[in-house]
Amino acid sequence: MLSDTLKKIQPLNQEAMQKQSAYMDSLVKPIGSLGELETLSIRLSGITGLTDTALSLPQKALIVMCGDHGVCEEGIASAPQIVTYIQSENIALGTSGAGAIARQFGATVIAVDVGIDSPNRSPHLVDRRIANGTDNIAKGPAMTKEQAVLAIEVGIASAENAIDAGAQVLAIGEMGIGNTTPSTALLCAMTGASPEEVTGVGANFPKEKLPHKIAVIERALEVNAQSGKSPIERLAALGGYEIAGMTGVILGAAARNVPVVVDGYISTISALLASEMHPHVRDYLIASHASHETGAALATKTLDILPYLRMDMRLGEGSGALLAFPLIDAACAISAYMTTFDSSGIASV
Amino acid sequence: MLSDTLKKIQPLNQEAMQKQSAYMDSLVKPIGSLGELETLSIRLSGITGLTDTALSLPQKALIVMCGDHGVCEEGIASAPQIVTYIQSENIALGTSGAGAIARQFGATVIAVDVGIDSPNRSPHLVDRRIANGTDNIAKGPAMTKEQAVLAIEVGIASAENAIDAGAQVLAIGEMGIGNTTPSTALLCAMTGASPEEVTGVGANFPKEKLPHKIAVIERALEVNAQSGKSPIERLAALGGYEIAGMTGVILGAAARNVPVVVDGYISTISALLASEMHPHVRDYLIASHASHETGAALATKTLDILPYLRMDMRLGEGSGALLAFPLIDAACAISAYMTTFDSSGIASV
Repeated sequence: MLSDTLKKIQPLNQEAMQKQSAYMDSLVKPIGSLGELETLSIRLSGITGLTDTALSLPQKALIVMCGDHGVCEEGIASAPQIVTYIQSENIALGTSGAGAIARQFGATVIAVDVGIDSPNRSPHLVDRRIANGTDNIAKGPAMTKEQAVLAIEVGIASAENAIDAGAQVLAIGEMGIGNTTPSTALLCAMTGASPEEVTGVGANFPKEKLPHKIAVIERALEVNAQSGKSPIERLAALGGYEIAGMTGVILGAAARNVPVVVDGYISTISALLASEMHPHVRDYLIASHASHETGAALATKTLDILPYLRMDMRLGEGSGALLAFPLIDAACAISAYMTTFDSSGIASV
Repeated sequence: MLSDTLKKIQPLNQEAMQKQSAYMDSLVKPIGSLGELETLSIRLSGITGLTDTALSLPQKALIVMCGDHGVCEEGIASAPQIVTYIQSENIALGTSGAGAIARQFGATVIAVDVGIDSPNRSPHLVDRRIANGTDNIAKGPAMTKEQAVLAIEVGIASAENAIDAGAQVLAIGEMGIGNTTPSTALLCAMTGASPEEVTGVGANFPKEKLPHKIAVIERALEVNAQSGKSPIERLAALGGYEIAGMTGVILGAAARNVPVVVDGYISTISALLASEMHPHVRDYLIASHASHETGAALATKTLDILPYLRMDMRLGEGSGALLAFPLIDAACAISAYMTTFDSSGIASV
């Protein structure tokens, strides 16, 4: 399934982009004056093949991948692990931060249990649990390569199901107590950055304990140093089920010509992994906001995407990604509703 | 009317802000992790007095002030003046950039003719025309002080009418061919900046002709050097009917405890004038995007507001201001829909 999905990912539709670019220049406005909205509309045309008044993508879904992390036993998170389960339910029920915003925006929310560590299974979550959390990356690999592939495939299937149900734009988010630690380990492995440079406080981890978190990430990198450098090998060694799941959602969306909005730090790490798996993936990604987490700037720069919003947010769950949905609506609206110079009477002035 | 309005403008409701700040800290998220959305919700509480689950501001209106500029005879604009009239109609009809986005977002659009230079009067515009455009600021004052006050009062009345019709949030925008020239003249007069530093190309004015535009602005500042330094005197000398109109909308909104979203460069100049007229006005302003126009950064910095979006937009019409409406919706949604730690079961973990 993973290799089939990778084979389906195509470069952007250049013909549609050229057509849309010319259409943007024909609308009643100074050339280029709608800036990033124009650029976004042209890219949406490249992704979907839809142009001019046909560019309309009203149906949107947020897919939130949920998983736990064995490395929590090292004391690297400020909240107890059980919060992953409780908060995943709140997301699905619309009472978490992302849940509340999605409800306001009329976006569907799909919360998937890819690897929550709990004796319970929530009826509000899509149950695709692979294991009760990862193993402790400070002691060995997070999971096997087979489990990493399975988690990616959960993401691919989640994207496909959402698209089959009508979604025309996807956003990704995550819930996993402790998951800035594996994310930072992955960022270091992929970029060569040192944990000291890029480790942040995540969800209000006490600043004075940051050296401990850095030491745990350094140990994880050491212990897993021989695990291989492919994205799947890195995911298996240092990742998490929700991180792999989001990578899968991105691949699944790209394979179906559906744009996918990246959230903050952790989802950008998933996007980096996805773009290492296929060179054209990056073109399907839409950046939303610049996360306040320390490593986010390097992750965004490495992926070479430019976030539209500066909101100093660092909640995760896809809360920031949702804020890009109205920008996509606006990019479609200028294409669908604006009149052209020719029909406005201005061209003949 | 103007002085009555100024008397009604109050400081923010500190009690409501403290209550909302405590409420934000009680919601199921790491403290402060929703960043600017939390800050915005607290300010909306200070403006409206509404807190926690009662904070809801669904009805929004964009008020677009339209006017022409005598200084166009100096050749400082790339489009002919008749475009002001045509494009003002397109805004009202929902086929301009701002019109299209407003239609998508379900926001009401009110386009007001405060001083369009045309033999015609459009049935689609609110006709409050004070004159057929301003006089040429490179030769003398744009208008009389009485006309400046009248134009501000058109704005106040427009805000009041929109609020009486149900609007709970306002945004301002403008249409006026050539209006980056008076805006830049006003910015120079208010900040002491030189025209050379802050003059930009506006709506694609050819870069090679920029020295001419700078020279015209320098002449306007010289010719009107003895006109006085009060906001009304400056508006009369260097401003425009739509610029004064937007200043009025801001004052009218603040006097009614309604938040008002500022658009790009020209509307920020109007906001600077409004905030010089009353010290508490700034607290009612919400910044949307950072305009790509040269002087915008100085205007935003002088007003001390921080735009949320980086879209490289420079269309005007309120197109950028509209993009802040969903952010306001999101700030209200987290307040209205998120559950608290106490009721989530996490507090007892």
